[in-house]
Amino acid sequence: MNTANQRLFNQTNKESKLVEQEVRRDDIGFGTKLTDSRSRLINQDGTFNVVRVNGTLWDRLNIYNRLITMGWVQFLSWLLVFYLTANTLFAGVYMLAGADTLKAADEKELYGPFWKCFFFSSQTLTTVGYGHISPDSFLTSSIAAFESMMGLLAFALATGLLYGRFSRPMAHIRFSKQAVLAPYLDVNGLMFRIINTRSNQLINLEVSVSMSRVEPKPDGTPFRKYYALSLERNKVSFFPANWTVVHPIIEQSPLYGCTPDDLEQSDAEFLVTVQALDDTFIQNVYTRFSYRFNEVKWGQKFRPMFDGNQQSPIRLDLDKLDETEDAPLN
Amino acid sequence: MNTANQRLFNQTNKESKLVEQEVRRDDIGFGTKLTDSRSRLINQDGTFNVVRVNGTLWDRLNIYNRLITMGWVQFLSWLLVFYLTANTLFAGVYMLAGADTLKAADEKELYGPFWKCFFFSSQTLTTVGYGHISPDSFLTSSIAAFESMMGLLAFALATGLLYGRFSRPMAHIRFSKQAVLAPYLDVNGLMFRIINTRSNQLINLEVSVSMSRVEPKPDGTPFRKYYALSLERNKVSFFPANWTVVHPIIEQSPLYGCTPDDLEQSDAEFLVTVQALDDTFIQNVYTRFSYRFNEVKWGQKFRPMFDGNQQSPIRLDLDKLDETEDAPLN
Amino acid sequence: MNTANQRLFNQTNKESKLVEQEVRRDDIGFGTKLTDSRSRLINQDGTFNVVRVNGTLWDRLNIYNRLITMGWVQFLSWLLVFYLTANTLFAGVYMLAGADTLKAADEKELYGPFWKCFFFSSQTLTTVGYGHISPDSFLTSSIAAFESMMGLLAFALATGLLYGRFSRPMAHIRFSKQAVLAPYLDVNGLMFRIINTRSNQLINLEVSVSMSRVEPKPDGTPFRKYYALSLERNKVSFFPANWTVVHPIIEQSPLYGCTPDDLEQSDAEFLVTVQALDDTFIQNVYTRFSYRFNEVKWGQKFRPMFDGNQQSPIRLDLDKLDETEDAPLN
Amino acid sequence: MNTANQRLFNQTNKESKLVEQEVRRDDIGFGTKLTDSRSRLINQDGTFNVVRVNGTLWDRLNIYNRLITMGWVQFLSWLLVFYLTANTLFAGVYMLAGADTLKAADEKELYGPFWKCFFFSSQTLTTVGYGHISPDSFLTSSIAAFESMMGLLAFALATGLLYGRFSRPMAHIRFSKQAVLAPYLDVNGLMFRIINTRSNQLINLEVSVSMSRVEPKPDGTPFRKYYALSLERNKVSFFPANWTVVHPIIEQSPLYGCTPDDLEQSDAEFLVTVQALDDTFIQNVYTRFSYRFNEVKWGQKFRPMFDGNQQSPIRLDLDKLDETEDAPLN
Repeated sequence: MNTANQRLFNQTNKESKLVEQEVRRDDIGFGTKLTDSRSRLINQDGTFNVVRVNGTLWDRLNIYNRLITMGWVQFLSWLLVFYLTANTLFAGVYMLAGADTLKAADEKELYGPFWKCFFFSSQTLTTVGYGHISPDSFLTSSIAAFESMMGLLAFALATGLLYGRFSRPMAHIRFSKQAVLAPYLDVNGLMFRIINTRSNQLINLEVSVSMSRVEPKPDGTPFRKYYALSLERNKVSFFPANWTVVHPIIEQSPLYGCTPDDLEQSDAEFLVTVQALDDTFIQNVYTRFSYRFNEVKWGQKFRPMFDGNQQSPIRLDLDKLDETEDAPLN
Repeated sequence: MNTANQRLFNQTNKESKLVEQEVRRDDIGFGTKLTDSRSRLINQDGTFNVVRVNGTLWDRLNIYNRLITMGWVQFLSWLLVFYLTANTLFAGVYMLAGADTLKAADEKELYGPFWKCFFFSSQTLTTVGYGHISPDSFLTSSIAAFESMMGLLAFALATGLLYGRFSRPMAHIRFSKQAVLAPYLDVNGLMFRIINTRSNQLINLEVSVSMSRVEPKPDGTPFRKYYALSLERNKVSFFPANWTVVHPIIEQSPLYGCTPDDLEQSDAEFLVTVQALDDTFIQNVYTRFSYRFNEVKWGQKFRPMFDGNQQSPIRLDLDKLDETEDAPLN
Repeated sequence: MNTANQRLFNQTNKESKLVEQEVRRDDIGFGTKLTDSRSRLINQDGTFNVVRVNGTLWDRLNIYNRLITMGWVQFLSWLLVFYLTANTLFAGVYMLAGADTLKAADEKELYGPFWKCFFFSSQTLTTVGYGHISPDSFLTSSIAAFESMMGLLAFALATGLLYGRFSRPMAHIRFSKQAVLAPYLDVNGLMFRIINTRSNQLINLEVSVSMSRVEPKPDGTPFRKYYALSLERNKVSFFPANWTVVHPIIEQSPLYGCTPDDLEQSDAEFLVTVQALDDTFIQNVYTRFSYRFNEVKWGQKFRPMFDGNQQSPIRLDLDKLDETEDAPLN
Repeated sequence: MNTANQRLFNQTNKESKLVEQEVRRDDIGFGTKLTDSRSRLINQDGTFNVVRVNGTLWDRLNIYNRLITMGWVQFLSWLLVFYLTANTLFAGVYMLAGADTLKAADEKELYGPFWKCFFFSSQTLTTVGYGHISPDSFLTSSIAAFESMMGLLAFALATGLLYGRFSRPMAHIRFSKQAVLAPYLDVNGLMFRIINTRSNQLINLEVSVSMSRVEPKPDGTPFRKYYALSLERNKVSFFPANWTVVHPIIEQSPLYGCTPDDLEQSDAEFLVTVQALDDTFIQNVYTRFSYRFNEVKWGQKFRPMFDGNQQSPIRLDLDKLDETEDAPLN
């Protein structure tokens, strides 16, 4: 809720206490009713745990988005499938138009009319056009003219998709698999650790952490509540190495006095959002992560990721991200 | 009006009350004079209801923008038209240069000189270049060299256009066709509902709603006035499912005490702007919508879009977006 | 100077009055020393009136930027020049390698060895490759293999440049050729008018206006001073039609009590910056403009750009942008 | 630390003084422990002085980022290496499939079967496809069909990479090689100078300067501390020429009373970040730089970069960026 709104409602003569209360509630978008599901709100890959049904076919396919976000093996396989399918279809069309009107330089045709059409199609679609097979009738010439134009467009699409996949802003940030509840100065703190796995420079990092848990209303019915957790530091200008994000459990913290059992019974989940600027392309990158109650280790702390000796340049060992050791709580 | 300005004018000794009043008026860009038109300010596709006349031809054509925003069928048709036209034109040029200087491997030429030139042109423009027809004079060689370069550029353009069309930031947000005026806690509220129709993740959603209506000046002349409507919540971090945007009609609301007749007589229109971040490409997306007085249902509320049982993952039925049911107002 | 800084200096015990004064001066980047030049600070195309000398050749050429910002005719001419030059150079190389090792299907060669090499080069560079001329020695085959790779890269470059030129964010905002000093409510105002010449939707427009003029220091030496001019309205959410930007000349204005002669003698220039969001691609666009003292008409006001009758949709006549009429000042 | 956090901690009953102190410390991301390394934190090219070890191979290769950020000579060499390697590999595959099934128009084959395969491969990969060599068996036709598709994809990749390299936002800002400590008004100031080496217009420049130095804790152990240095001016709207950034050394400055020896013994480093908007593409650009204690000249000031006479347009001599002259300190 923005300041303007808040001001507006503050000026009111408290006409509707219920409205005022609702305005102040500030949920982050999941609503209050998800109390029985006992499943994550945010999956570990950052997607929301919701499925859409119905809607238009085009929306459900969401082709461009899928082709951009799928893995490289899957993407290249789809390209190959598309290429083979297109050539097979066009080969079929050339067969219908008469395979004999595709004149081959050397008509021994060891591999029969279908494959002659298929290979002619591939040479047309890719615009390689050797010419040892060439269209010799009005009909096949027309089809070939159309196919080569389709080839250009398909090429254009592939160019766009490849560029889109490569240039897509992605935070190559890895989160420690588990959060810890460790001693922190003279209190305790909820901590997790993040690293930049790439040599790209990330700057202006911002982290925000929310806790979501199920609580009973005054009348006893459960509802889901959200808390923003204050951090020791929620912004750094530079991210040269690793960063241990710390929520100090002082008296104001909703975690103050909590036990592991409390977290489990209230179905607690810690929602993390990281925003940064990748300065190779000056792109904002975002990433989400979530720790559920059973992904928090109590009485453990993270081991340093740097080599012991302070040489120059400093060496950061990425494989130590998840290493923890016992640490008695305060 | 920004704070700096406001401060400046506050410091004045109120020299010009009229200026001060005008500075505070804060219209959103439509001005005060559109009082008789009795037509929408914002069309339902988000465009403004204004037509430009005169101006330069280039500005009026606005080719790139049109090619990016037109539908796919229209776009592909234009590409085909362009391809056929270009080939026809170049075929004409080759005819002028002498069709007989395009030497065909097999000169039976079932389809006559024009089509020989046409197909040679298509093979040159797409750079497929089979070679069973080839230029055999200085003139036709020169034209072909020029045409193949044009082909490269046209290809480049098509690549850019296709990429531009696909990567264009678009909020695939659907608004409920009608707004409702429904009971809300212990008061009433003006509500509409939005969903993300795609599986892309949208984050950091912000909604703003303005009401525009015609009111009489002290001297009785009508002028158009604008109100920002305060919302229960105008920002959410996550948009996993649907969101019902609510303007609570408390005493401060310009809608307080309004009747459907009031809205109609003042030609009321509710202007909605939604901004979000699509995190596939970390692009800001914007969308506009408007509800006119006759698109608000009084005494109706939205039906839930979730399936009754809380399974996991949660299922959101997009087809229920517009479903409402009777709800007596407070 | 940002608030943090300002606070810091406010907390000081005023140790250095000179530093404090300098910190508050807030020039916008041109400095105080340009007092004799009697020429514009900002050209009417928005560029700064400064010339760089020396620096590295690469920086001075600034090729990519030039190819993106030059006009279309110039750009296409450069492409043609590049294509002809590249083909001529490669033709030379093939001549050196032996023109007779490029075997032509039909060796009558009406146009001699150079042109055979030239056209072969063009067919290789564009990858059209008819094959009626083909490389027949190791050396020419190697050169052709290299040239076709160069062709691919040149093609790639052209694609990028064309896309860059088209997708470059540009505010198609036209400023009225002259500003006016017109009556405004019960005072006067400095006004100019802007329109969006395209059918693209521009939203979230912000305008800022500074005045720069030469003033004498206490000791009489002239220096250039800058003033931010407060506006009736410096931000609108929507820009459906035209917008008349108004600086009301109230007592706080640095223009209060000024005469046309004052402006001329102090070499006054009004610097305008407009920022907006083009919502076709959700791109921020910026544009600058400047009015010098002799481009302000005193006692004139702008004529409306709308047709008289309020039909729907509203018709905006872009050709009326510069039309003004007499208006006696308050 | 953001205001919300700060407020939260201010409201506390100071339960944990240590937490509060840590929250206020505000380091910029390098941490407090780098006290012995005696090496720069930020290299002069703006990268961080940290090396990553382990992690996944894909992350360590970081191919796209490397291909975008490497120099042009290196990039073009890699393209050539890739092209030759791909052709050699495919030539090998054609040899295995039988070089004699690639039928050459003129079978004298001066250069043997391998080179026939190699050149056929190059003609297929680039889709030039002259056709004087053509595949004559099912196997070689299939390989060629696959290779031409690969060629298209490789072409698409090269297009994307070239466009990415050219359109990558880069601040062509040059910093003076050394900072100076010069007289400034009635005190002294730490100064450095920046210029825009290109003719692109840069607007909305923001500079921030931090000092990092090693200090002893109350118990005598050294730790690294960070100070934001307040500037005479940290933001300008326009950057037409050069800009001398000044930190005035008034009583509040951490440099107040410092000597060159103090800086050396505390291993002082000045970290500079510049942000601007390049208005050719409306891209934000960022650049970092750092001056170590031994890169600050005491008692020197910068010479003007403008020609003496105020002609129009103003001439800025980029080669004078580093020129300083003696100036006795206040």
